Amino acid sequence: MKDQSLFQFMDEVGETGPGYRVGIVGATGIIGKTLIGILHQRRFPVGDLHLYASPESEGRWIDTPFGQKCIERLNKARPPHLQLVFMAAGAAVAREWGWRFAHRGAVVIDKSSYFRDKSYAPLVIPEVNPESIREHRGIIANPNCTTIPLVAALKPLHEAFGLAGFTAVSFQSVSGSGGNGMLTLARELEDINAEATTFPHRIAHNVIPWIGSPAGGHSSEEKKMINEPRKILRLPRLPIRVTAVRVPIMIGHSLALHASFRKPVSVEKARKALESMPGVTVKDDPADGLYPTPLAAAGRDEVLVGRIRRDRGWHGLALWISADNLRKGAALNAVQIAEMLITNQAAGDSGVNTIPG
Amino acid sequence: MKDQSLFQFMDEVGETGPGYRVGIVGATGIIGKTLIGILHQRRFPVGDLHLYASPESEGRWIDTPFGQKCIERLNKARPPHLQLVFMAAGAAVAREWGWRFAHRGAVVIDKSSYFRDKSYAPLVIPEVNPESIREHRGIIANPNCTTIPLVAALKPLHEAFGLAGFTAVSFQSVSGSGGNGMLTLARELEDINAEATTFPHRIAHNVIPWIGSPAGGHSSEEKKMINEPRKILRLPRLPIRVTAVRVPIMIGHSLALHASFRKPVSVEKARKALESMPGVTVKDDPADGLYPTPLAAAGRDEVLVGRIRRDRGWHGLALWISADNLRKGAALNAVQIAEMLITNQAAGDSGVNTIPG
Repeated sequence: MKDQSLFQFMDEVGETGPGYRVGIVGATGIIGKTLIGILHQRRFPVGDLHLYASPESEGRWIDTPFGQKCIERLNKARPPHLQLVFMAAGAAVAREWGWRFAHRGAVVIDKSSYFRDKSYAPLVIPEVNPESIREHRGIIANPNCTTIPLVAALKPLHEAFGLAGFTAVSFQSVSGSGGNGMLTLARELEDINAEATTFPHRIAHNVIPWIGSPAGGHSSEEKKMINEPRKILRLPRLPIRVTAVRVPIMIGHSLALHASFRKPVSVEKARKALESMPGVTVKDDPADGLYPTPLAAAGRDEVLVGRIRRDRGWHGLALWISADNLRKGAALNAVQIAEMLITNQAAGDSGVNTIPG
Repeated sequence: MKDQSLFQFMDEVGETGPGYRVGIVGATGIIGKTLIGILHQRRFPVGDLHLYASPESEGRWIDTPFGQKCIERLNKARPPHLQLVFMAAGAAVAREWGWRFAHRGAVVIDKSSYFRDKSYAPLVIPEVNPESIREHRGIIANPNCTTIPLVAALKPLHEAFGLAGFTAVSFQSVSGSGGNGMLTLARELEDINAEATTFPHRIAHNVIPWIGSPAGGHSSEEKKMINEPRKILRLPRLPIRVTAVRVPIMIGHSLALHASFRKPVSVEKARKALESMPGVTVKDDPADGLYPTPLAAAGRDEVLVGRIRRDRGWHGLALWISADNLRKGAALNAVQIAEMLITNQAAGDSGVNTIPG
């Protein structure tokens, strides 16, 4: 099902406003660039756009759909006064700058892992837990690029059958580790002797069952795949078993999901529940070659779900998920959160759930 | 642990014999070529070597470590009189020729899926179920290239803790579908506009969650991953949940395994059990970058196991497996079966478990 874009909403309420003072931190990275494109594509009411990146990019002019923009300096002594800040620059920058922006009045939507486990920061997928956005105190966390498609598919099944636990194995593209990951794969595919750089081993013609750093037996990526769905679905003890794996493809994260439920399941009911979920598109006719692939998901906004089948285990269902990790997995979800803030505000909601004017 | 090669055994018993009349069907394919190389590498007692392939290859001379050989014609009116036949030519050829060879006195070791579910054909991984080889009546089936590493890792854990069920998700290289799969990936990586040929979709920069044909909700590859471990481990009702996925790498199949056991487990005990399993090598120190990858497994004989960790669920253990699908996953396992037949014979075993002279 397609989600309703803010533009449609704006048309309906007959009001577009003057546009907001928007900042993007990490604007030269691959998520930052995708963010700028999506803001324009969805006609997000951008008034002023301020771009920030690492010090070596300062003063550089870049082309954007909003015109040529200069990468500005982040000055601690005088933090900029913005209304909405998208941060896509890693945990260290999020820690250093998140509250600085928020204290100056902005709502911060952060893509890094830094705020995700903080009780004061809601972890939001707009189609899944829109209500939690009301709990924010200036900072909203964007879930991990693997968590978003996973939970988008789990949510309607949880509502239909009551989730009892799941096993998920991820197939994550190199762009999940940024533009450098893509350059590294391209270089390694060209040169069989290229040394491993971005990844702990060569990724060309390889598969690496380790993403991130050690985290109590798991990799840190696996820890996110356990903690984040629990927080978003408000199921703090949900049994989750995961393996996170990097595969040599440019764009698109996929998941093999084997889930158990409390109530009896059927493939028909599961398909219907998934089809009525906003942001999810079911592609499921394997005999006809129809199932999600990361190549089919790349550049698209929807989370693709298919291979829906009965599975062994307690009321078991298996399925396969692919999504664009740069769009729904990151930038699009952040923009959707911002759209929801504005929609809530326009709908008369007040307090912390609005963007200060 | 390294397995004891036939050559060592021959040294010990002080007898190498005149060599056997060996046939290879599918000799020009990638498994066939790997087979010839492994027979030579392991100093298998080959007397006469007869090579067979598809009709268009007939009469072609090919270089082998056993000298130049001509691809011969398979004549139904006069099936060749061989002692040992390796078949690596698909299910249709296996059905047509398997019993023809066996009735002329050969022991047939078939790599296709055709005989695997037949009650008269043992399905053998020499390190796992050597005893079942005695049940053969002329035909022995080689398990699927994904089943072999999976069951090689499961066996010692089953002995230690009692296997209760597992979820396995595969990452299978393109060589699993033969030399054409490798050519297809290479071509698609070169040419972004190349049409999908060997696989149902482009495989370059993609991941395809479908291998084979429809089989009751599963793909046929998934069906093999359910049926074959049950047969080999003699656990006909074992709950198994699988997803079989093709990834864009040349060589090496990997598996994310999440297993439950009847008895309490520990990572230490699991590691010890795996370390003492012949044919299995444990590589497990993720903080130091040490875990199996298909690139590390390619060209090696061992099944690599790592990422051994406690897992949620009933006495749960998770681990990661990589192996060379052309060697241990196919050709090497077939040669090891043949070595075991000879070893049994030399050790005084008689009857169907020997190669007729």
